[in-house]
Amino acid sequence: MSFEIDASEWLNTDEPLSLPALRGRVVLVTAFQMLCRGCATLSLPQARNLHLTFSRDDLVVIGLHSVFEHHHVMTPDALRAFVHEYRLPFPIAIDRALEGSVLPQTMQAWALEGTPTLMVFDRDGELVLQHFGHLDDLRLGALLGGLIERQPGASQDGAAQVPAWRPGADAGAVCIPI
Amino acid sequence: MSFEIDASEWLNTDEPLSLPALRGRVVLVTAFQMLCRGCATLSLPQARNLHLTFSRDDLVVIGLHSVFEHHHVMTPDALRAFVHEYRLPFPIAIDRALEGSVLPQTMQAWALEGTPTLMVFDRDGELVLQHFGHLDDLRLGALLGGLIERQPGASQDGAAQVPAWRPGADAGAVCIPI
Amino acid sequence: MSFEIDASEWLNTDEPLSLPALRGRVVLVTAFQMLCRGCATLSLPQARNLHLTFSRDDLVVIGLHSVFEHHHVMTPDALRAFVHEYRLPFPIAIDRALEGSVLPQTMQAWALEGTPTLMVFDRDGELVLQHFGHLDDLRLGALLGGLIERQPGASQDGAAQVPAWRPGADAGAVCIPI
Amino acid sequence: MSFEIDASEWLNTDEPLSLPALRGRVVLVTAFQMLCRGCATLSLPQARNLHLTFSRDDLVVIGLHSVFEHHHVMTPDALRAFVHEYRLPFPIAIDRALEGSVLPQTMQAWALEGTPTLMVFDRDGELVLQHFGHLDDLRLGALLGGLIERQPGASQDGAAQVPAWRPGADAGAVCIPI
Repeated sequence: MSFEIDASEWLNTDEPLSLPALRGRVVLVTAFQMLCRGCATLSLPQARNLHLTFSRDDLVVIGLHSVFEHHHVMTPDALRAFVHEYRLPFPIAIDRALEGSVLPQTMQAWALEGTPTLMVFDRDGELVLQHFGHLDDLRLGALLGGLIERQPGASQDGAAQVPAWRPGADAGAVCIPI
Repeated sequence: MSFEIDASEWLNTDEPLSLPALRGRVVLVTAFQMLCRGCATLSLPQARNLHLTFSRDDLVVIGLHSVFEHHHVMTPDALRAFVHEYRLPFPIAIDRALEGSVLPQTMQAWALEGTPTLMVFDRDGELVLQHFGHLDDLRLGALLGGLIERQPGASQDGAAQVPAWRPGADAGAVCIPI
Repeated sequence: MSFEIDASEWLNTDEPLSLPALRGRVVLVTAFQMLCRGCATLSLPQARNLHLTFSRDDLVVIGLHSVFEHHHVMTPDALRAFVHEYRLPFPIAIDRALEGSVLPQTMQAWALEGTPTLMVFDRDGELVLQHFGHLDDLRLGALLGGLIERQPGASQDGAAQVPAWRPGADAGAVCIPI
Repeated sequence: MSFEIDASEWLNTDEPLSLPALRGRVVLVTAFQMLCRGCATLSLPQARNLHLTFSRDDLVVIGLHSVFEHHHVMTPDALRAFVHEYRLPFPIAIDRALEGSVLPQTMQAWALEGTPTLMVFDRDGELVLQHFGHLDDLRLGALLGGLIERQPGASQDGAAQVPAWRPGADAGAVCIPI
């Protein structure tokens, strides 16, 4: 399967980004909604840290604003204010709204279950992880570190894999104080 | 000085609230904006905890949505979606917008500096604290506990006072991971 | 019932403290063991904050080292090193060991169930709270604020009471990352 | 340089471990003192998470108790009680004390500056990181993920390297509430 983002608009970038054009780098797409509390509190700050920590040659972080609720208030203008207030510095795609459909285009094509969802692609553009919910820094860091180390073409020998975490392991509780 | 909230609309309450009518109870008003990160992360979860912890006979918690930025996207409809997603259960007043003014009515009348701002009134309706920024749970809890203990009329013997915290004391760092 | 600390030694104070002699002030005693993880992580940092935040005329914070496990390694010398490394500034009593008993003297007399345990006395020396486990800053702050406000003698009109928190209220999850 | 742990005793393992014998796996050694607050609060819980998360074929986590202060109370018996109370499940070496020296043997040989210190070795036994202080989960996870991906012998093509983090990047503040 080939993955591409179908965006009606991009923020924080002069040019639209294309997943195929990013081959050679690891790509993390974080699907979010600006009024999703888990996104605002957990996944977007984490994505910001990733963007600020890694070299762009190794990792490209992309936000995907996939609105499937409260459409009338999570508008492009509202998103721009949100991005400004939360100081999100990475490129953000606005998932294309579909006439007569609650779900936007990319969310539907990728079969996203909700927000936040994490999509990670290796240097060959292969999807390595699709994770609904938050993933802790230790595991996500380990996954990305492994994928960054893996050179392009390596997945022809067999797809890069999410490490087989030890059963039952929980690398730190996630605790939302509400 | 007499304090009243000038609201164009109320959420989470059938009837508008009036500060004078709440005499006899301690009242905490938290002024916020839905796209203010410190509000969403710190002051609103704290206000929620206060609302859920104390008896309504002792403490009334009120949110005041004072929009002074991004007016076109922090609309009443957007606020309703935010309140739903963040599960805020206490009454929320929408500070009345003023034609030709960036600041809304109550914010201007109360000389609020920004958001979050905490306003605490004792059982006699006297303003005891106006605090711009976040106040940690230990100090705010101690202040409210003292005011709740104080019976109505007690402030005629001298206004209730914010405890004289020890100089330099910092009851726990506030750390926003962004 | 009259409460007194039976200590074999005191740290961080030139003179032993006596609970009856502290009448007129609110007193918080935190019973702990230096190798108790909940104590080191939660209750002792909280006690430190309380000690640094409130006036000594209002609140006196006392640590009570009640060793009931690993007696041979939680010695007075080990405690001194711990107190130094964790920068605990408040007076600490070493609960008197009893020949042939696992539990030390004060722990037994006060029927403490384990550590951490919080004991709070009002300005009249009446026990207001005995709490096994951690109590969050918001509730403990509110309790102390109310007791500080209450003048000596007030409890003759009826003992000071722990506020009747709303049923089911949880003022913020406590999350120990282990 | 060849690295080996000189231990007077091992906990949580039937046999002493040897770094050369662990070639083929990534090895993380966390040097600590049981009364070091940063160790108890940050680095040991992190090491525990690492031990519980990764496969033993990929990563071996070792604690190194390097006592350079309060020697008379941080004894092997005291350490055993600490390890029990803090539920540390990974092998722990007691750094060999040296007659007439404040610093123990391994600490001296490895020129450790204090505790906590993190030592990371790749699958070829090459030292990749020596870090005094805490390293956040995101970066440590990424480093380990990269090293785990790298097969033995790969460092002959050039030593495995700590990723060149972006200048000024701070992947999340570390905040110790004391």
